[in-house]
Amino acid sequence: MNSFGKHIILTSYGESHGKAVGAILDGFPAGFEIDMSYIQSQLDRRKPGQSALTTSRKESDLIDVQSGVFEGKTTGAPIHFQLLNTDAKPKDYDKLKDIYRPSHADFTYEAKYGIRDYRGGGRSSARITAGWVASGALVQDYLQKKQGINITSYVSQIGTVLMEDIGQKYTQAQVDSSPVRCPIEKTSEQMIQAVNQAKNSKDSLGGVITCVISGVKPGVGNPVFGKLNALLAHAMMSINATKGFEIGGGFDMASKLGSEVNDSFVKEEDIIKTKSNFSGGIQGGISNGMDIVFRVAFKPTSTIGVEQITLDNSHDKVTLEASGRHDPCVVPRAVPIIETMAALVLGDLII
Amino acid sequence: MNSFGKHIILTSYGESHGKAVGAILDGFPAGFEIDMSYIQSQLDRRKPGQSALTTSRKESDLIDVQSGVFEGKTTGAPIHFQLLNTDAKPKDYDKLKDIYRPSHADFTYEAKYGIRDYRGGGRSSARITAGWVASGALVQDYLQKKQGINITSYVSQIGTVLMEDIGQKYTQAQVDSSPVRCPIEKTSEQMIQAVNQAKNSKDSLGGVITCVISGVKPGVGNPVFGKLNALLAHAMMSINATKGFEIGGGFDMASKLGSEVNDSFVKEEDIIKTKSNFSGGIQGGISNGMDIVFRVAFKPTSTIGVEQITLDNSHDKVTLEASGRHDPCVVPRAVPIIETMAALVLGDLII
Amino acid sequence: MNSFGKHIILTSYGESHGKAVGAILDGFPAGFEIDMSYIQSQLDRRKPGQSALTTSRKESDLIDVQSGVFEGKTTGAPIHFQLLNTDAKPKDYDKLKDIYRPSHADFTYEAKYGIRDYRGGGRSSARITAGWVASGALVQDYLQKKQGINITSYVSQIGTVLMEDIGQKYTQAQVDSSPVRCPIEKTSEQMIQAVNQAKNSKDSLGGVITCVISGVKPGVGNPVFGKLNALLAHAMMSINATKGFEIGGGFDMASKLGSEVNDSFVKEEDIIKTKSNFSGGIQGGISNGMDIVFRVAFKPTSTIGVEQITLDNSHDKVTLEASGRHDPCVVPRAVPIIETMAALVLGDLII
Amino acid sequence: MNSFGKHIILTSYGESHGKAVGAILDGFPAGFEIDMSYIQSQLDRRKPGQSALTTSRKESDLIDVQSGVFEGKTTGAPIHFQLLNTDAKPKDYDKLKDIYRPSHADFTYEAKYGIRDYRGGGRSSARITAGWVASGALVQDYLQKKQGINITSYVSQIGTVLMEDIGQKYTQAQVDSSPVRCPIEKTSEQMIQAVNQAKNSKDSLGGVITCVISGVKPGVGNPVFGKLNALLAHAMMSINATKGFEIGGGFDMASKLGSEVNDSFVKEEDIIKTKSNFSGGIQGGISNGMDIVFRVAFKPTSTIGVEQITLDNSHDKVTLEASGRHDPCVVPRAVPIIETMAALVLGDLII
Repeated sequence: MNSFGKHIILTSYGESHGKAVGAILDGFPAGFEIDMSYIQSQLDRRKPGQSALTTSRKESDLIDVQSGVFEGKTTGAPIHFQLLNTDAKPKDYDKLKDIYRPSHADFTYEAKYGIRDYRGGGRSSARITAGWVASGALVQDYLQKKQGINITSYVSQIGTVLMEDIGQKYTQAQVDSSPVRCPIEKTSEQMIQAVNQAKNSKDSLGGVITCVISGVKPGVGNPVFGKLNALLAHAMMSINATKGFEIGGGFDMASKLGSEVNDSFVKEEDIIKTKSNFSGGIQGGISNGMDIVFRVAFKPTSTIGVEQITLDNSHDKVTLEASGRHDPCVVPRAVPIIETMAALVLGDLII
Repeated sequence: MNSFGKHIILTSYGESHGKAVGAILDGFPAGFEIDMSYIQSQLDRRKPGQSALTTSRKESDLIDVQSGVFEGKTTGAPIHFQLLNTDAKPKDYDKLKDIYRPSHADFTYEAKYGIRDYRGGGRSSARITAGWVASGALVQDYLQKKQGINITSYVSQIGTVLMEDIGQKYTQAQVDSSPVRCPIEKTSEQMIQAVNQAKNSKDSLGGVITCVISGVKPGVGNPVFGKLNALLAHAMMSINATKGFEIGGGFDMASKLGSEVNDSFVKEEDIIKTKSNFSGGIQGGISNGMDIVFRVAFKPTSTIGVEQITLDNSHDKVTLEASGRHDPCVVPRAVPIIETMAALVLGDLII
Repeated sequence: MNSFGKHIILTSYGESHGKAVGAILDGFPAGFEIDMSYIQSQLDRRKPGQSALTTSRKESDLIDVQSGVFEGKTTGAPIHFQLLNTDAKPKDYDKLKDIYRPSHADFTYEAKYGIRDYRGGGRSSARITAGWVASGALVQDYLQKKQGINITSYVSQIGTVLMEDIGQKYTQAQVDSSPVRCPIEKTSEQMIQAVNQAKNSKDSLGGVITCVISGVKPGVGNPVFGKLNALLAHAMMSINATKGFEIGGGFDMASKLGSEVNDSFVKEEDIIKTKSNFSGGIQGGISNGMDIVFRVAFKPTSTIGVEQITLDNSHDKVTLEASGRHDPCVVPRAVPIIETMAALVLGDLII
Repeated sequence: MNSFGKHIILTSYGESHGKAVGAILDGFPAGFEIDMSYIQSQLDRRKPGQSALTTSRKESDLIDVQSGVFEGKTTGAPIHFQLLNTDAKPKDYDKLKDIYRPSHADFTYEAKYGIRDYRGGGRSSARITAGWVASGALVQDYLQKKQGINITSYVSQIGTVLMEDIGQKYTQAQVDSSPVRCPIEKTSEQMIQAVNQAKNSKDSLGGVITCVISGVKPGVGNPVFGKLNALLAHAMMSINATKGFEIGGGFDMASKLGSEVNDSFVKEEDIIKTKSNFSGGIQGGISNGMDIVFRVAFKPTSTIGVEQITLDNSHDKVTLEASGRHDPCVVPRAVPIIETMAALVLGDLII
């Protein structure tokens, strides 16, 4: 199951250290001028080696379009986005070939398939999200230009450092001014410190990304299955290392009274809004025109340098000290993944 | 989009005050002896009027099977579960026909469809989950009997009352000994108090349900899209009033170090396990054989007796005081919904 | 796999002699005034006992709508069409319970499921198409009223009697003026003779139905998979007893030169047409605005009174003389099934 | 809609004169040793320039696997088959850019998408079936080696030349000994003559391919929608230039009596068979263990050298004389397409 969507369908392929990773986007409308520089810019936000805080793997992540575009415009045919793996160093991973790394997918892939491409995590590597980002960026660009829908996200928590977050909006410039993609300068600095500290102790950190989507008209989503919030949850839980999803008031609402968190309707300049937005822009699975606000929790990167004892596939104990290239905290690089996956969900419903 | 699943497919129909609600379950294996009393027992745990804590609507929720079963056994043909609406009192809802109730789906349904069956929420009513529970209970029974998979859930939080919850297991008897389905007696009593207090002040409460699934072998789930956790998230966010989903360590893992929450592999009596279970039984989207543990957050019931000011569909202000029958806290009744939806997810992957 | 369609989805359930047969239609647009008398009229064209030429089973085939319609209009929620089985005489079939009837699905169902509802063919009975006809008739009515699309079909061959057929159009009145639904009076009479002769010799006859659809605008269908002709083929081959499907010039084109059957474009009153219509209204899987013309071949009814020697499920020889009620030729009753399935295909692509 | 299948899913991409054509095959089982030479051999049977009878376009059609295979074995991850377009000569097509060629998809693509990649038919070119053949050949190889299922097909008709065809089997060697892939030497010679004659008069010919599949166990297929015959029909009607599909006795059965074509069950060496095989190996949509036999009709190639008058997209008359490279009869090259598409249908149901 490597496809996502029902009308605009992403099909993903590729492994971390194979020949290429990529995706086919099927169902995208014809006649749209493809903006390769925008797509590349979202890929650049995701790519490794952006700063001292990320893995040292160097991938240019240059996107190539092999079909579905003619004379600069989409034709309605499936669009194949391909990224060659240029800095693949599979040999680095030889010593991991028999090891079940803690909290990685080594054991479960082997349980399911009986075979495993162990080079850099193979199919389970987050590298494959490059194809998602390329596809989703095209959809995000379309939604922005054709529908005025603006999808932005930011890092609202890394480790124990968190910013006050009530679903407010920031521009991409504000977000990207911080290497950890937290738009509050002071919090950003604390996050950087936390990441550096984790890096120095060969450890890793998790975090939370908040996504705010504005410009979605009322009426988008499905009432029963395929609720807009359920589709977003599915999309977000498909991203590597995610452990939780909440919409609007989220888990906090469990401890509230109905009278505290009910969103009453009001009229403002002839537009129907809700006074508060604990619903996160979605009621009964369908958008109500307010900002769509959700949060996604990431666990700390499973690859750490700290010594760990685990098993190999002969079921013998082994001591593991990671040597591959990895990020102490993947959360900042996940920002464009969140945005583009949200774009794919919305595009699938709207376009 | 009223179907769920890919191999074992639930198709839901019906409205709160129409002739019937029900579901068709397609793809269920042939030759299984259907245990109607087990199915009815899960429906009884969901049905209204169970105790003073729930809505006074009286529905016997007697399930009728109209196809797919012959001489007591499933035939491989689609199974139609039907529940007639017997205590439908649509007239009660006439005065709500023009009102956009706060945090209900009145406004969004009208935005999407231009028309709305306003009787008791129509299609957006949680009543339609009766069909899901019937279908899912059959699958749950199958998984228990044929695969030794045990799915149980319990209320771990109502309002600000919460039990210590590290994903431990309880029997259904333990859970059902409490009218709020919290297996810890003292916490249960506090929850009952909280619900009664909310009821007396015509208000409502949210909560959290924890679900623990044991007996799933390693290798169940999909690696990229259709991850087991993503499918569970989709299923859970399809249930009315849910606002958040987390797996294993969940949102708490955002603030942890990798070295604190990595699940190392160990061998116990020749079985490969993980020392801790922050992964919640799923790694890389695929089960690892440990208990699958997830939590679902519910907002407080949107229908409250407290006076609220909102809009009608002429965009005029109206004052609303609920008079329909409703629950001050739906969370205890949602326990069988969570279990049966989890069964549908697992059945779809395993059976 | 009991669902058909991607956007407007029919889900079928029921067995020949169970409690009910029916279907759920999901994805149909909201706000359409449902015309129950039109739907009933298509069901009446399909129902048994219409004339001396059809089976003597008496089913009123009265349709009941249990959901998805409010105050006479569709609401966007799934529409449940139910038909109770009133003249079910399962006892008639007891003596067939162990027999593999020639060219029936007894053996294959048992091979697949290990169990079989033998009463009147169970799930393999053409009775279940009643639910398809109800659903498809709603879509057919919509296409007619909202899009000016007219779907008609007629019997162009029964046994060795055939009419000249180049895809010309007839009104439903013209078609229904004949008990065998052949609009050419003389041919119709010959067909009636042929059916009576087969009936008298306890035998059965096959035939061909031609379907002509006008009013479909250019641009409907998919270019690669999901070609309009491929979807029609799938739909038609889903109908019981069908053995062949051809579009436009069909099998005859195999023996033609390109220069004989190429459809050149011409302009007529500012509309682009093709001079001939060997394409049958579809080029590259997509409609070109010309009439869509296809033909469906039916084998003779497998149930015959003539003595046959076959096996039972102990693999012993048995002599079979049919006693159940059946049609000497099902083709005339299949006319509304063809039309409504074509409507479902088109509705799925257009609405 | 560029995907085919439900469990083993082919996703196709590419245009005739773009950078590449290809396909992603998702859901194929892990651990199978991929036989690249077999896959290449099926591609070679399809490729242009095989003989004087086919188009002079020279494509080596060398297949490259970019993912899903590790150390020679499939891993369960999606397999990306890529074929670069090496002999693309898009300039040849410049003069066709505004013309609606008779019986091509130029007009319908433009009607649907408003834009068209006119180079060699773009997405509507049969060149894209190269990706299908690569994917299907892998499945065909698997079915042969793991299940003993043998899929062969042959040309049974070209123009008015036809061989006696009752669904008998031939080996691939027998079929390929003829340049037109007709295993009867004398008929083959007549067909070659017919093709040469059409070629010399700048015209084209259609034909029929018969496919015979042996080794499918009873019980494969679905009873209602997704009948094995319906899935085969959908697959075959997805191939360029096909106009008809029939299973077993096909259209001829329309003129038969039930007593003539009913397939009685008999026991032969403890295996249940049918005495005749008018059912074509499928009853009630499910295989019965007999050979599966179907026929597919192809229209003559639409591209011909004979002068034709048609319209351009300004709706003006133009005279067209084809100059691009094309086949006078595509039917022989379609043999591996039929086989591999049949393999995809069966693999989807069985594997």
